[in-house]
Amino acid sequence: MITFENDYSCGAHPAVLARLLETNLVPQTGYGFDAYSDSARQKIRAACACPSAEIHFLSGGTQTNAVVLASLLKPWEGVIAAETGHIHVHEAGAPEALGCKVLALPEHLGKLDPGELRALAATLLSDENVEHMVYPGVVYLSHPTEWGTLYTKAELEAISAVCREFGLRLYVDGARLAYGLRAEGTDVDLPLLARLCDAFYIGGTKCGALCGEAVVFPRQAPPHFLNFIKKHGAMLAKGRLCGVQFEALFTDGLYDAIGRRGVETAQRLKTILARRSVPCYLDTPSNQQFAILDNARYAALRERVPVGFWSHPDPDHTVVRFATAWYTTDEYLEELDRILAAL
Amino acid sequence: MITFENDYSCGAHPAVLARLLETNLVPQTGYGFDAYSDSARQKIRAACACPSAEIHFLSGGTQTNAVVLASLLKPWEGVIAAETGHIHVHEAGAPEALGCKVLALPEHLGKLDPGELRALAATLLSDENVEHMVYPGVVYLSHPTEWGTLYTKAELEAISAVCREFGLRLYVDGARLAYGLRAEGTDVDLPLLARLCDAFYIGGTKCGALCGEAVVFPRQAPPHFLNFIKKHGAMLAKGRLCGVQFEALFTDGLYDAIGRRGVETAQRLKTILARRSVPCYLDTPSNQQFAILDNARYAALRERVPVGFWSHPDPDHTVVRFATAWYTTDEYLEELDRILAAL
Amino acid sequence: MITFENDYSCGAHPAVLARLLETNLVPQTGYGFDAYSDSARQKIRAACACPSAEIHFLSGGTQTNAVVLASLLKPWEGVIAAETGHIHVHEAGAPEALGCKVLALPEHLGKLDPGELRALAATLLSDENVEHMVYPGVVYLSHPTEWGTLYTKAELEAISAVCREFGLRLYVDGARLAYGLRAEGTDVDLPLLARLCDAFYIGGTKCGALCGEAVVFPRQAPPHFLNFIKKHGAMLAKGRLCGVQFEALFTDGLYDAIGRRGVETAQRLKTILARRSVPCYLDTPSNQQFAILDNARYAALRERVPVGFWSHPDPDHTVVRFATAWYTTDEYLEELDRILAAL
Amino acid sequence: MITFENDYSCGAHPAVLARLLETNLVPQTGYGFDAYSDSARQKIRAACACPSAEIHFLSGGTQTNAVVLASLLKPWEGVIAAETGHIHVHEAGAPEALGCKVLALPEHLGKLDPGELRALAATLLSDENVEHMVYPGVVYLSHPTEWGTLYTKAELEAISAVCREFGLRLYVDGARLAYGLRAEGTDVDLPLLARLCDAFYIGGTKCGALCGEAVVFPRQAPPHFLNFIKKHGAMLAKGRLCGVQFEALFTDGLYDAIGRRGVETAQRLKTILARRSVPCYLDTPSNQQFAILDNARYAALRERVPVGFWSHPDPDHTVVRFATAWYTTDEYLEELDRILAAL
Repeated sequence: MITFENDYSCGAHPAVLARLLETNLVPQTGYGFDAYSDSARQKIRAACACPSAEIHFLSGGTQTNAVVLASLLKPWEGVIAAETGHIHVHEAGAPEALGCKVLALPEHLGKLDPGELRALAATLLSDENVEHMVYPGVVYLSHPTEWGTLYTKAELEAISAVCREFGLRLYVDGARLAYGLRAEGTDVDLPLLARLCDAFYIGGTKCGALCGEAVVFPRQAPPHFLNFIKKHGAMLAKGRLCGVQFEALFTDGLYDAIGRRGVETAQRLKTILARRSVPCYLDTPSNQQFAILDNARYAALRERVPVGFWSHPDPDHTVVRFATAWYTTDEYLEELDRILAAL
Repeated sequence: MITFENDYSCGAHPAVLARLLETNLVPQTGYGFDAYSDSARQKIRAACACPSAEIHFLSGGTQTNAVVLASLLKPWEGVIAAETGHIHVHEAGAPEALGCKVLALPEHLGKLDPGELRALAATLLSDENVEHMVYPGVVYLSHPTEWGTLYTKAELEAISAVCREFGLRLYVDGARLAYGLRAEGTDVDLPLLARLCDAFYIGGTKCGALCGEAVVFPRQAPPHFLNFIKKHGAMLAKGRLCGVQFEALFTDGLYDAIGRRGVETAQRLKTILARRSVPCYLDTPSNQQFAILDNARYAALRERVPVGFWSHPDPDHTVVRFATAWYTTDEYLEELDRILAAL
Repeated sequence: MITFENDYSCGAHPAVLARLLETNLVPQTGYGFDAYSDSARQKIRAACACPSAEIHFLSGGTQTNAVVLASLLKPWEGVIAAETGHIHVHEAGAPEALGCKVLALPEHLGKLDPGELRALAATLLSDENVEHMVYPGVVYLSHPTEWGTLYTKAELEAISAVCREFGLRLYVDGARLAYGLRAEGTDVDLPLLARLCDAFYIGGTKCGALCGEAVVFPRQAPPHFLNFIKKHGAMLAKGRLCGVQFEALFTDGLYDAIGRRGVETAQRLKTILARRSVPCYLDTPSNQQFAILDNARYAALRERVPVGFWSHPDPDHTVVRFATAWYTTDEYLEELDRILAAL
Repeated sequence: MITFENDYSCGAHPAVLARLLETNLVPQTGYGFDAYSDSARQKIRAACACPSAEIHFLSGGTQTNAVVLASLLKPWEGVIAAETGHIHVHEAGAPEALGCKVLALPEHLGKLDPGELRALAATLLSDENVEHMVYPGVVYLSHPTEWGTLYTKAELEAISAVCREFGLRLYVDGARLAYGLRAEGTDVDLPLLARLCDAFYIGGTKCGALCGEAVVFPRQAPPHFLNFIKKHGAMLAKGRLCGVQFEALFTDGLYDAIGRRGVETAQRLKTILARRSVPCYLDTPSNQQFAILDNARYAALRERVPVGFWSHPDPDHTVVRFATAWYTTDEYLEELDRILAAL
C-alpha cells in the first residue's frame, strides 16, 4: 500500500521510535522538565547556532500557531498573513477563537511580498482612526509555504527589516521545515531563522515524529509562556514524548536526512509526472508537488492511490497535491509510475 | 531510580509501544479517520456496552476538558464543579479562556454533593435575574477525584437525576479512570458511566499511553465536534497515534491490568506507610495516597525520592502525595520502604 | 460653527430630547422592561409591518454588531462581509474578540455581489476539509454601506435567496438606515428588510438619538438574547433611555423626516461641490458624499471646517467625506459654499 | 407612583438634562474628544485632587468592569473578588467572556478581608505549580458593596498594601459611589481612592445620569485603552453624551448633593421600617436598605410598591431591598409609610 495523500501518513521515523523504546521505563518529571527535553533543547540550540534560544515543545501545528500568536500579540494587535496562510484558511478559526484577527495580504505562490507588507503596516499605523482598527502585531509566514514554495534569504531579510521598522514580530511556521531546509538551491538555514525571527517552529509531525513541534524563541520567550501552553490545553503531562523524539531528530543528522529524503523523492516524482504527461500546476522545490488533471483522470487516480485534493481551477479540472516524506520509498514511486501509466 | 511523583513519569506500557512499532509503517489517513482509531472505537464501545457511542481521541486532559466543555455548553451557560475540581484550580483558566465560567460548589473529599448540586441549580434557575447570571449547563466531576476518592453508583445516579431534572449535562473527567475502575469495592464501571453521562473521557496519559484521552459521547457528539477539536488546536494530524494506543489498551484486558497494578501497589504502599509510622492524610481506594509529614521529614524524603507536594495543612507539616501506576514495580515499593525506615 | 465631519456631531433631535424631558421623572423598571421601550417596540413593529418582531435596544453600532453576531453564529461559523464592511475594518477586531472570523469578499462600491457570495458559500460547504475551516454562518451587509451606496430590492432578494439556499442568516447593519430609506429612487423599505433579514438594526445614534440602536428580529430572537446583551456589557440599567428615544423617533414620522433632511442636504451639497469644481470621488444617493481634493486644498479646507479623512488614492490627493444629518441647516451649506469658493 | 426597586428607575437629575438641552446643537467631534468631555475630565481631576488622572467615559457598569479588567489583566492573570462581588454573580459571566477568571474569596457583609486576600495571594504565588493556575492580577471591590456596606480608609489602605506587596492592581467599582461618599461617618473620599487605586469608576447611571460611568486611572491608563473600549463595543460615537452629563454632575456640587439625598432618604426609610416593625436584615450606611419580611407580607408589599427581591434566607421569609436615590422625594417616603402601616 502506498500513499501520497500527505506527509503524515505513517508513524515515526524508525530511529525516533527506537529512542522512545530505549528510554521508555526511565522515570522523568513531567511537563517538559525531563532530561530528554533538555537534551533536545541543547541540540536544537546548537543546530540554530543560537545558545540563548528558549525552546518549548507542543503537540501539533494549529495548536502551536495559536499558542505562539496568543503569547506574542498584545490585545490591540492582529497577525498579518498571506491569504493562503494556514492560520487564515485551514485552522478552523483558531486564531480568532483566541481573539486574534488575521490581516490578510495577497499571496504570491503562497508568499508574502515585503513591499505589500510594508505598505499595509505603514497605512494602518498612520491612520487617524487606528484605535478603531486592529494594529499589526505579528507577521506570520510559513516556510515552506502551503504551496510548497520557499522564501529566499533576501526575501526573509526584507520582511524582517519591515518588522523591525514598524515594531512587528516575525513568526515562521515551519511545519515542513525539514523539507525546506534541504531543498535544492535554498539559502535559508536554521541560524538564519534564529537571527531573523522572534519565534519559529521546527516541525516534527510532518518530519518524522509521531507528533510534536519545537517552538524556538531565539532571544527569549514571552513572559509566562508555560502558562499560555497550559491554558490553551497544549501542555503534555509526558513532555518527554516530544523531548525524546526531538532529541532523536537532532542526533546524527536525522532531521537533515528526513528532509533530504522528502525532497529527493518529490523531485523524482516530478520526473514521473512529466514522463506520464501530467502537467504540474506549480513547480516547487520542496516535498509537495501540485499537478493538474481533468476530473475523470483525477477520479480514476484517486481510486488507486491516496492523494490530496486541492482545488478546482475550473469546473472540469482538479488540482491534486502529491506529498512525499521520509517514508516515501522507491516502491512508492515505482507504483505511482505504473498507476499513472495505466490511467 | 524510583518515583512516586505522579502517574505519568514513564513512557507507555510496553504492549502499547509494541503496537506502535508494529503498525508504524502502514500508511493511514489522518485526523482520526485511520483503521486503528476505528478499531479502538469498536473496542471501547464494547467495553462500555454502548454500541452507539461516538468516540474521539484527544491528546491531554486539560485540552479534553476544554474542548468538551466548549462543545457541550451554550453561550449563556457555565459548568458546575467542586471547588477542588481540576478545571477550577489546575488548568490555568482554560475553561475561562473559552468564555466558560466555573460555578464552584463545596467539595467533600473531592466530591460533589447531589443535594448541594440540586440546591444550586434550583436557586439559579428560579432567580428572577437569571439572565444577569450564568446558567448552569454542565456538571463536571472527576472519577477518581483529585483526592483519589471515588463516587458510588448511588451517588452518580443521584447526580445524574439532578442533571435530568434541570436539563444539565453530566461530564466525567476520567484522567485516572483505570485506577478507579479497579479499586476495591467500587460499583462503578464503564457501562454505568455510558448510561449516566452525556460525555466522559477514558484517561490514557496516566493509564499506560504516551498521551491521549478517549472522549466518549454515549448518545451522540455535539454537532461539528471535529470542528471544535480543530479550532482548539487539539486535532492530531497523526490521529493514529491515539488510535493505535487505545486499541492496545482495550485489547486483552490491558486497561484493566494497568488499573489493577496501580491500585494494588497503592494499597501495598499504604501498608508500608503504616509500618513506617507515616500517617495517612486521607485513605483512598485508588492509586493516589496522601500522607502527612513534618516539614523536616518531608524535606529529607524529597531528597531521596520524587513525591508530589500537595499542601501545608499547618506551617509545620506537609501533605505529600504518593502516586503509583502501571510501572510501579515491587522494587519501587521495597526501595521506598527502605527510605522511610531510614528517614 | 458648522461641521460635515460625520453624522453624530450634535446631540439629539429636539423632539427626542423633549420626550426625554417629559418622561424624566416617571419611575420605570430597568433593563428595557419599561413602558416606553414597549411602546417604541410597538411603533417599530408597525413601521416594519411585522407584528411578531422581537426588538431590543442597544447603545451603539459596534456593540450591536458584536452582540447580534455572537447570538446568531454557532461556534463553528463565521460571518461573511465585504472587505470594506465596518465589522471587518473599523471595529477594532470586535467580532474576533468574540471568537468570530470575518470571511471577507470583494466589495463593489461597498456592496456584496450575490454571485460571489453564492460561490463562496458553495465552495466552503463542499470542501472535503470544511471541518478544518470556518463555516459560513451569517451574511453581514450595511445599508447604506460605508461608501454611502444602497442595495436595490432585487439585490437584497438575491442575497436573501443565497442565504436560504445555504442555511445562512442575513443581518443588515442599518447605522444610517434613516438616510437610506429616504434616498431618491430606493425601493428598499422597513417591511422589505423585515421580510428578508434574520436580524437588522435601525440606527439611532447617527439618525437623531443621543445613542441607541434598535435590533429587530423579524421572526424571533436567538434564545437568551438578554443574556448575550448582559454578558457583552451592552445592557443599559436605564433601558428607558433608548426606549423613550425610539418612541419619539417613530412618532409622527420623525425618523422619516430625519432621513429626508439628511438626504436633501447631501444632494444640495453635491451641487455645491460641483459649482466649486470639487470632483466627486463617488456619487451616492444617501447622506455621505465623497470628494477628491489635492492635499494642499484638503489641508486648507480642514482648517476651516471639520470633514472626514477617508484615504489617499495617490500620494498627492485625499478623498474626503462630507456627512450631512438631521442637524445640517441651510447655514451649514451656505457657509461651506463660501469656504469652498475661497479655497 | 413611587418606587424603591432600585436606584435607576427615573431618568437624569434635572440639572443634567438641562445641560444636555443647553449644549444639544453645538457640534463636537466624536468618541470622547469633545470639549464637554474634556471639561468633565478637568472637574473630576480636581475633585480627586489628582491632576494627572486619565479619565474615560463608558456607558454602564458591567461594560466598564469588563473593559477595565481586560485592560488591567495580563493573559495569565485573574481577578480576585468577594464571592458576592457583582462581577462574580451578576454580570452574566462577562469577565469570563473575556477570558478572565474570577478568584472568589469569602465575603464579610459584602467586603473582602485584607488578611484573607493576603493569604490567597501568598499561597498562589508560592505554589510550585503556579503556571498551572491562574495568577492573581487585580483585586476588585465595590464601594459601596452589593450589600450597601462601606470600606473604611484603614481597610482600603490594608488592601492596597497587600496589592503593592504582591504586585496586584487595585480596582474599585463605584457604581453607587455618590451614596458611599456621603454616608454618615465614612472616611473615604475621592482623593483617597485616587491615591490607593490603579483604577476606579465614578458611577453615573445610578447617581443622576441617564447612563455613563467615569473611569479614573489616577496614574495612567493601560496602553491603547481607547482600543479596548472600541473593541469591546463600549465606545459611544457621541462621547459628548457622557461628557456633558459628568460635567454637570461635577459642577456646583451636584454629585455630592445627589449622594446626600440618597443617603438621607435611606436613613429616614430605616426609621420608617423600624416604626412599622419591619426588621432590618442588615444595617447599612448608604442608599440600600435590606429588610426581612415573611413571604405573605412581602407579596402584599410588592403589589403596592416596586421593591427589590434579594433572597430567601429560609423558605418562609424574603429579604427585600429598598433602594433610594436622588429622585426619592418626601412623598415616596410618606407613601411607603402608609403602605407599611396598612400591610
